[in-house]
Amino acid sequence: MKTEKIPNEQIITRTPFPASRKIYVKGQLHEIEVAMREISLTDTKIHNGFGERFGERFGERSNLTEPNPPVTVYDTSGPYTDPDMHIDVKAGLPRLREKWITGRQDVEQLEQISSDYGQQRLADSKLDTLRFEHLNKPYRAVKGANVSQMHYAKKGIITAEMEYIAIRENQRIDLLNAQLGKQYEVMNHQHKGHSFGANTPKGYITPEFVRAEVAAGRAVIPCNINHPELEPMVIGRNFLVKINANIGNSAVTSSIEEEVEKAVWACRWGADTIMDLSTGKNIHETREWIIRNSPVPIGTVPIYQALEKVNGKAEDLTWELFRDTLIEQAEQGVDYFTIHAGVLLRYVPLTAKRVTGIVSRGGSIMAKWCLAHHKENFLYTHFEEICEIMKAYDVAFSLGDGLRPGCIADANDEAQFGELETLGELTKIAWKHDVQTIIEGPGHVPMHLIKENMEKQLEHCAEAPFYTLGPLTTDIAPGYDHITSAIGAAMIGWFGTAMLCYVTPKEHLGLPNKKDVKDGVITYKIAAHAADLAKGHPGAQYRDNALSKARFEFRWEDQFNLALDPDTAREFHDETLPADGAKIAHFCSMCGPNFCSMKITQDVREYAAKQGVDEQVALEKGMAEKSKEFTEKGSEIYL
Amino acid sequence: MKTEKIPNEQIITRTPFPASRKIYVKGQLHEIEVAMREISLTDTKIHNGFGERFGERFGERSNLTEPNPPVTVYDTSGPYTDPDMHIDVKAGLPRLREKWITGRQDVEQLEQISSDYGQQRLADSKLDTLRFEHLNKPYRAVKGANVSQMHYAKKGIITAEMEYIAIRENQRIDLLNAQLGKQYEVMNHQHKGHSFGANTPKGYITPEFVRAEVAAGRAVIPCNINHPELEPMVIGRNFLVKINANIGNSAVTSSIEEEVEKAVWACRWGADTIMDLSTGKNIHETREWIIRNSPVPIGTVPIYQALEKVNGKAEDLTWELFRDTLIEQAEQGVDYFTIHAGVLLRYVPLTAKRVTGIVSRGGSIMAKWCLAHHKENFLYTHFEEICEIMKAYDVAFSLGDGLRPGCIADANDEAQFGELETLGELTKIAWKHDVQTIIEGPGHVPMHLIKENMEKQLEHCAEAPFYTLGPLTTDIAPGYDHITSAIGAAMIGWFGTAMLCYVTPKEHLGLPNKKDVKDGVITYKIAAHAADLAKGHPGAQYRDNALSKARFEFRWEDQFNLALDPDTAREFHDETLPADGAKIAHFCSMCGPNFCSMKITQDVREYAAKQGVDEQVALEKGMAEKSKEFTEKGSEIYL
Repeated sequence: MKTEKIPNEQIITRTPFPASRKIYVKGQLHEIEVAMREISLTDTKIHNGFGERFGERFGERSNLTEPNPPVTVYDTSGPYTDPDMHIDVKAGLPRLREKWITGRQDVEQLEQISSDYGQQRLADSKLDTLRFEHLNKPYRAVKGANVSQMHYAKKGIITAEMEYIAIRENQRIDLLNAQLGKQYEVMNHQHKGHSFGANTPKGYITPEFVRAEVAAGRAVIPCNINHPELEPMVIGRNFLVKINANIGNSAVTSSIEEEVEKAVWACRWGADTIMDLSTGKNIHETREWIIRNSPVPIGTVPIYQALEKVNGKAEDLTWELFRDTLIEQAEQGVDYFTIHAGVLLRYVPLTAKRVTGIVSRGGSIMAKWCLAHHKENFLYTHFEEICEIMKAYDVAFSLGDGLRPGCIADANDEAQFGELETLGELTKIAWKHDVQTIIEGPGHVPMHLIKENMEKQLEHCAEAPFYTLGPLTTDIAPGYDHITSAIGAAMIGWFGTAMLCYVTPKEHLGLPNKKDVKDGVITYKIAAHAADLAKGHPGAQYRDNALSKARFEFRWEDQFNLALDPDTAREFHDETLPADGAKIAHFCSMCGPNFCSMKITQDVREYAAKQGVDEQVALEKGMAEKSKEFTEKGSEIYL
Repeated sequence: MKTEKIPNEQIITRTPFPASRKIYVKGQLHEIEVAMREISLTDTKIHNGFGERFGERFGERSNLTEPNPPVTVYDTSGPYTDPDMHIDVKAGLPRLREKWITGRQDVEQLEQISSDYGQQRLADSKLDTLRFEHLNKPYRAVKGANVSQMHYAKKGIITAEMEYIAIRENQRIDLLNAQLGKQYEVMNHQHKGHSFGANTPKGYITPEFVRAEVAAGRAVIPCNINHPELEPMVIGRNFLVKINANIGNSAVTSSIEEEVEKAVWACRWGADTIMDLSTGKNIHETREWIIRNSPVPIGTVPIYQALEKVNGKAEDLTWELFRDTLIEQAEQGVDYFTIHAGVLLRYVPLTAKRVTGIVSRGGSIMAKWCLAHHKENFLYTHFEEICEIMKAYDVAFSLGDGLRPGCIADANDEAQFGELETLGELTKIAWKHDVQTIIEGPGHVPMHLIKENMEKQLEHCAEAPFYTLGPLTTDIAPGYDHITSAIGAAMIGWFGTAMLCYVTPKEHLGLPNKKDVKDGVITYKIAAHAADLAKGHPGAQYRDNALSKARFEFRWEDQFNLALDPDTAREFHDETLPADGAKIAHFCSMCGPNFCSMKITQDVREYAAKQGVDEQVALEKGMAEKSKEFTEKGSEIYL
């Protein structure tokens, strides 16, 4: 094992976050353990009149302290940040959900994989070196069964996945409960005043609420029965806003570990799902490695691989070949498929006069097929057959917006909204089969046209979750499109988008490197969290308050550790004040001792506290004589 | 001169932008030349049926081309990017406005500077090495005169500054006019559908419109008569959204050139004004150097210097000392003063229970003074005397929000909005004296509370321009606060904020370096431009359309050159495809030839064009036989 483990350790990022430990919260309905990240904080020093800073000058020490409870946060990093977990990419992650899936007694394990292409690859001994070693036989629903979470939800069943999600979405609460042995009670105190989505219970998220949202189609749990390694998550506008990161294989990459590391790295910084957009010869094998080692749901665009199979000739695509590709990927465990079934023949001409025509790869492939054959899109004509496949493995639809605008000038046009209406029709067909469905959205949209996108999507698609790329709010900043799009992403997330597809600084220019992926993910975590705050998600503001309190109390280490990116926060601070002493300094590194407003405010409070009367009262009453004393002592405050 | 010029050249950034040249547009009412930046573009290749890419394969060339007109953009970089201009920081920039100012016959040139402190510094021979050599005697309004732009505007006078601004704000239009010899005519075609501010004339900005906005107090032209070097600009919500960059001296800095370069660097990337927040011993001398070499208005917070003069003891501040500081800085040429006159004694206690108390430096200094003396804020009690100084030099007020929230939890509270009402009172007093006034705003505000800030500001402050810091939409991302705040900045800019104060990635953590300043400025240019698009500013979308057209036509060089940051765009592209050939490649660097949707769309268009019929018609009619040909030829398209 050692020999295997060492190379992994080197390539796969496993360092735990500073002052953080992995904790696991037990379920109550099911035998589950929900992984969370706990950040421990230092104590607050209480300043008596001759509080710490004075104490130092007079050789006294303030020994009064007040503890700060640890902060628990939603954690997408999976087992990789748990030092107690043994990771071996060749074996894959623990099959967390396998017992839950088989326990439902509606699946069979197949003797062999069903797709012709999959079998060809398996039979090809030249691929043995590339192949994942411990291949499991795929699961499939038994004849006539439907294994989608929506199907269970509609039958009133609360699955283990649903309870896992409920605990997870409440973030810190579950920890407090575990400590207090009480169920959720603390919540309402913390979140007075917030009104979250109309459909959300005030206070906290229950397993039953998760079930109800999935049954209504307002939320989706992407969790293919052949991806038992994933930690369940939900996509819906009455839950935390999620983000997706795209990864793709690169020609230069030498090892499987490096491919896996791309997914691990994106999850570490907060990617809730990963889309594998790999192209080229060995995507079948690469995909297996990624899925077996991914703690988050994996999405793909199957038409990309289908196009590879016909050597890039869109017009040679056939339904049979596409169908085989769906089954091939479904049995590997892909959790959601982007399907461009809304690109109808009649919409294509509407794009001819655009500034940037069709910019979706899948969309342009299908447009070309439609023109070449002068036939309707085969994804549309065979949609119900696709549903049959989806429900046999619980793969969710991500209905692709093949006609999304590629620039500000093309935003909200006839082609885009025509396709959206068709996606609405298809959503209702998918729901007839209890197949989970999310809808993809634009693209490039100026701020004043964003809300219309959300409103039309909710109307046409009956509240199915919206999954948007950005949107980018201007075209003039190539090299900074993670920022042009984060502005639109935060807004549309607030308006109701359930998942945001990230954009990296390399968008439109080149292939993202590791730094670009991290920049894109962190930027989108910011957009998603800003949206959660604006929506008043019960668990959102807690982290802001904890960090701001730490900032105000000059608990620099806590400020770093509570940040989305502790490494960068610490590094930036140290560029200005490298000394460790500076991290307990009672002034901001920007302003210096005489100019730190927070210090001055603290001095005011300390002074009031020293009077041994309530600050508020002290400040409002007896100003006159207070001011006299203040001047005497106050003159020392600045030395 | 050579010997002087060389060191400047090394330290002061003067490289012109790629494919750009400085042009000067003549005024019609006044003898003025408005500096603009013209970006030249390459031609579009028209593809005949066997268009370029086919041509290459068949050894044919497409020789049909279509020119793309140059794009003129608003340029804040000043003379530094004009290779024909001789720059000598020791002499300062040309005194562009001096003739305009003296021509109005309402100013006198003083025999000596008026402030005691300024005279002490002048008398101190130890400072000779630090001092700016060619000191000019200061100008001041003749007794009884008022030299503020608002005063002229109210009297119906269209100043040279106003015409300069009108031409500048129209961006490209003036160039087209120069070419066409027509006045503004082209505008309306370009901007059909856009409805800009209620007060804006459809189509274009006229000098009279600028005057009317300044007279109404809806717009401010910061232009101290002692800063004749600046290129006039306007701050108002019916004009382009502006951005401010803060600079400060750093202990390590060795030379005056380096201090000047900070301002030059920020202006290069788009800073419309600079706030000099320098502290320490020699700020008087440093400020002189910065103003003499700055092409944009300079703002300061005079209370910072006043505090230095009393060794950081807020309680020792006096009105007399502050007054002398205002005159000292007004005669150097500071264009706007941040004055925290709204921090009233009764508001201070309202901050005691906040998570982060008072976070404005000026605000906390005044709060401390009020508590120490148990007196009302002397900036408030002496406000009319301050107005007398402002109108004698045309210094504009930036009424500081000393009680702005420092975290999400404190947003939109009683202290913040109480101060805002007082700023409204003060605005009306300032206007009584025809003193130009802008209002500073928060701070940290979640998205759903941003609009209320804008609405209350317009209501209480009678539409005086709003100047906001961010706002930051979450507290949890130190190290990325340029992004957390750009989200809020873009939104509040759209809602009506006239100028956005930038935030760098180092906010809350350390002192920004050159890269941080550039990142902050570019990020805020994005926010400001996104707001201009959402507001439908007549000149805004033109650049987006030009860049998107270049992108779609694979004119990579044009795409780089039209970007806010051409250097980074090019560098990112070259990381993936360094070869020069790639810059004329007809596929995206991301996807490769088989997967480039833009290429596929072009193929579809080329094909239709080849039929020699209009695309639209072709696609809608006769699909069947078209599709046959398409398959024959089309199969080759992908090779």
